Amino acid sequence: MSSGSYRGAGADLLSRHGVTAGDTVSISTDDGETMAGVIMPRYESASDSYIVIKLKSGYNTGIEVSKIKTIKKIAGATTASEAAAQSGQPLRQQDDNALPKIALISTGGTIASKIDYRTGGVKAALSASELYASVPELASIASVDPEVLMSEYSENINPGHWTVMADKIAEKVRSGKYDGIIVSHGTDTMHYTASALSFALQGLPIPVVLVGAQRSSDRPSSDAALNLIGATTFAAKAPVAGVFVAMHAGTSDDVVAVHVGTRVRKNHTSRRDAFESIDVTPVALVKDGKVEMQQQSGIDLAARGKNELKLQSSFDSRVALVKYHPGFDPTMVYWLLSKGCGAIVFEGTGLGHVNKNLFGVLKEAAEKGVHMFMTSQCIWGRVSMTVYDTGRDLLNIGVVPLSDMISETAVVKAMWALANAQDPEKTMQENLAGEMSSAIPI
Amino acid sequence: MSSGSYRGAGADLLSRHGVTAGDTVSISTDDGETMAGVIMPRYESASDSYIVIKLKSGYNTGIEVSKIKTIKKIAGATTASEAAAQSGQPLRQQDDNALPKIALISTGGTIASKIDYRTGGVKAALSASELYASVPELASIASVDPEVLMSEYSENINPGHWTVMADKIAEKVRSGKYDGIIVSHGTDTMHYTASALSFALQGLPIPVVLVGAQRSSDRPSSDAALNLIGATTFAAKAPVAGVFVAMHAGTSDDVVAVHVGTRVRKNHTSRRDAFESIDVTPVALVKDGKVEMQQQSGIDLAARGKNELKLQSSFDSRVALVKYHPGFDPTMVYWLLSKGCGAIVFEGTGLGHVNKNLFGVLKEAAEKGVHMFMTSQCIWGRVSMTVYDTGRDLLNIGVVPLSDMISETAVVKAMWALANAQDPEKTMQENLAGEMSSAIPI
Repeated sequence: MSSGSYRGAGADLLSRHGVTAGDTVSISTDDGETMAGVIMPRYESASDSYIVIKLKSGYNTGIEVSKIKTIKKIAGATTASEAAAQSGQPLRQQDDNALPKIALISTGGTIASKIDYRTGGVKAALSASELYASVPELASIASVDPEVLMSEYSENINPGHWTVMADKIAEKVRSGKYDGIIVSHGTDTMHYTASALSFALQGLPIPVVLVGAQRSSDRPSSDAALNLIGATTFAAKAPVAGVFVAMHAGTSDDVVAVHVGTRVRKNHTSRRDAFESIDVTPVALVKDGKVEMQQQSGIDLAARGKNELKLQSSFDSRVALVKYHPGFDPTMVYWLLSKGCGAIVFEGTGLGHVNKNLFGVLKEAAEKGVHMFMTSQCIWGRVSMTVYDTGRDLLNIGVVPLSDMISETAVVKAMWALANAQDPEKTMQENLAGEMSSAIPI
Repeated sequence: MSSGSYRGAGADLLSRHGVTAGDTVSISTDDGETMAGVIMPRYESASDSYIVIKLKSGYNTGIEVSKIKTIKKIAGATTASEAAAQSGQPLRQQDDNALPKIALISTGGTIASKIDYRTGGVKAALSASELYASVPELASIASVDPEVLMSEYSENINPGHWTVMADKIAEKVRSGKYDGIIVSHGTDTMHYTASALSFALQGLPIPVVLVGAQRSSDRPSSDAALNLIGATTFAAKAPVAGVFVAMHAGTSDDVVAVHVGTRVRKNHTSRRDAFESIDVTPVALVKDGKVEMQQQSGIDLAARGKNELKLQSSFDSRVALVKYHPGFDPTMVYWLLSKGCGAIVFEGTGLGHVNKNLFGVLKEAAEKGVHMFMTSQCIWGRVSMTVYDTGRDLLNIGVVPLSDMISETAVVKAMWALANAQDPEKTMQENLAGEMSSAIPI
């Protein structure tokens, strides 16, 4: 039996109705509902009590075997993609010159994971080619060339991984073979990686789109297929270049939002629409196979094919992100100085403040040449350090305000600036990749 | 001349039209607009080029003197409150037993500040009684008893200040004289203070409402008056008790939202509607002098007058809030151990994760009896540490998940639990003041 087929009650049911994975069917349930879609292949570890069908929207839904009344075949698995889905084998792509060429680089995370039903947990396991095989719609959008670069939960991704990813992407870009690149990534730190790639890969001539899933790809409520379809569509068709994040948007099941890589944040632990653009609108929405570019405020997007890639993939980890809170111990900054910290990004309160009991150690840090930057834990809005005494005092000490740059982007940019910029403080205040919407008034 | 009167071009204009501060007028401008409202008194340092009128909504608007065509008096300053506004003197409240009695405790911040027009900056300056005099509407809502407790920018508020505030509030509550208490506070850390008071003042029989302003009270776009009116209305009339935050809501100029003190966050650096309830809906909206209680999910509010106050106002500052980011230096945790840190609240990624390179030092911390708690930097949603390997590993090490408690509330509660709880880990997992919406499944 192929790895894509069902077992137990599910297999019996499909067999009884003369259908199999890859067939387009109409299913009626005891509840009086009728759904049409393609029967999805199942992985070894999957539960036997559900049949999963992919709806026309690209969204997977699971139907309890015990509730299924009838299954009617609408069309057999006749196309190459359906055959691949049926077999569970990677699709051998025809050399179709009419389709855009996309590189899919897999790094790990939920989008590349399946549930271990014994424990109820999720393990990073699915390869890029398995992923590709499980989302046959991709075949009609692009000729996709998958590669597994690494397999890491994203909470374990560190600046060294960013360098490996940037170098690999640069290699693919410079090959000239691709119209776009997709990077599958765990969602926990996807926005940090998106920022890192935005600074490391300036002047990209094509889109590089990070994509993940909040629910693993063989769960009925998974957003993996929809997100991957959205990312591929944008990478293949968008008129712009740069680093982006493509994830499920809103509460409907058919829209993917594409965000600027330096302006996006995971704002919910579990919702599929967890990723949101901060202080700007998303770059585009992808729906029904179409890329709808959105009006942008303050972000200049590069046109596709216009720029030449400048790879600067080094990061210097001697940067700390310090979130201020009442009762914060100022001596932590002394410890950072003793550790040879090169830059501190503060996540201050409101317009960019910290307690005045920090002023002493911040003066010492400034004298030692440690770069200090201010962002706000409010997340939305921009820091403005000329309004109150505290802000003016911090400016006088030498703390540099970072306008509306979010703290996650700021800590990544500081690591990049320490490794690549002649004058890190100057570079931090320049908009390089859409990370701040205007010059900083001091 | 009284401190409330205009000077220069503004004074000339008012004099020419036979009107003065406190009068209800209709003003027409060169732009063809007509606005009706009460002329507000001006402070010494205010600009001369604007007349400020308070609209019926309680919202102040500034009109450029040079653009004013006509001013028509609708009503003179005849009521006590208008006379107070006109004179700029604190209102001597009549002993009106029909009105609820409210204590207004001033701690500082923008709501108690006025712009220094020489520098363009804002200084903490306005006393509670000045505030009260400048918002004459309060006289018709409640008999307000103001007191200046301290005058601190809220970024300088520390756990010691929380104790002073809690003790003062307890004193006022126990006097039995008040139907509600308002605490004016800077907005930067108002949500931290609200959490602190929520734990320190359990069993409150009346509402304690924190209120601030995003724009200072003599700026035309100030939200100080609206917020103070909203807070007073809620403190006087709401059927519930506990600690709340009342601030401007939405984009209109006439709605104040009231949030549970442990569930609110400043989510924008400058917008007047910066404060938002996290994972729950606001407790109430205050509009047109009415308190509209909202449907709550998961938060049990105490009825007014039902409980007896239990004051526990100590806080132990030996608590750190650590926001994880890629490239985070695990040796920071060794430093925390060396400092005698009693508890660490992690702001992890996603469902509650940190890099596996922290596992070693976290095991050491657990062995030393340091309490470790997990929240999420996503802000919205709850941590869930049984889904992925990383979460399960952290649970095994002894890190305690805090469900949907926001990190700002968690660090405050940990400081309170270290000082007051027999078993801080147990107490952290119990819902004491609406800070988490359900028991934590481990």
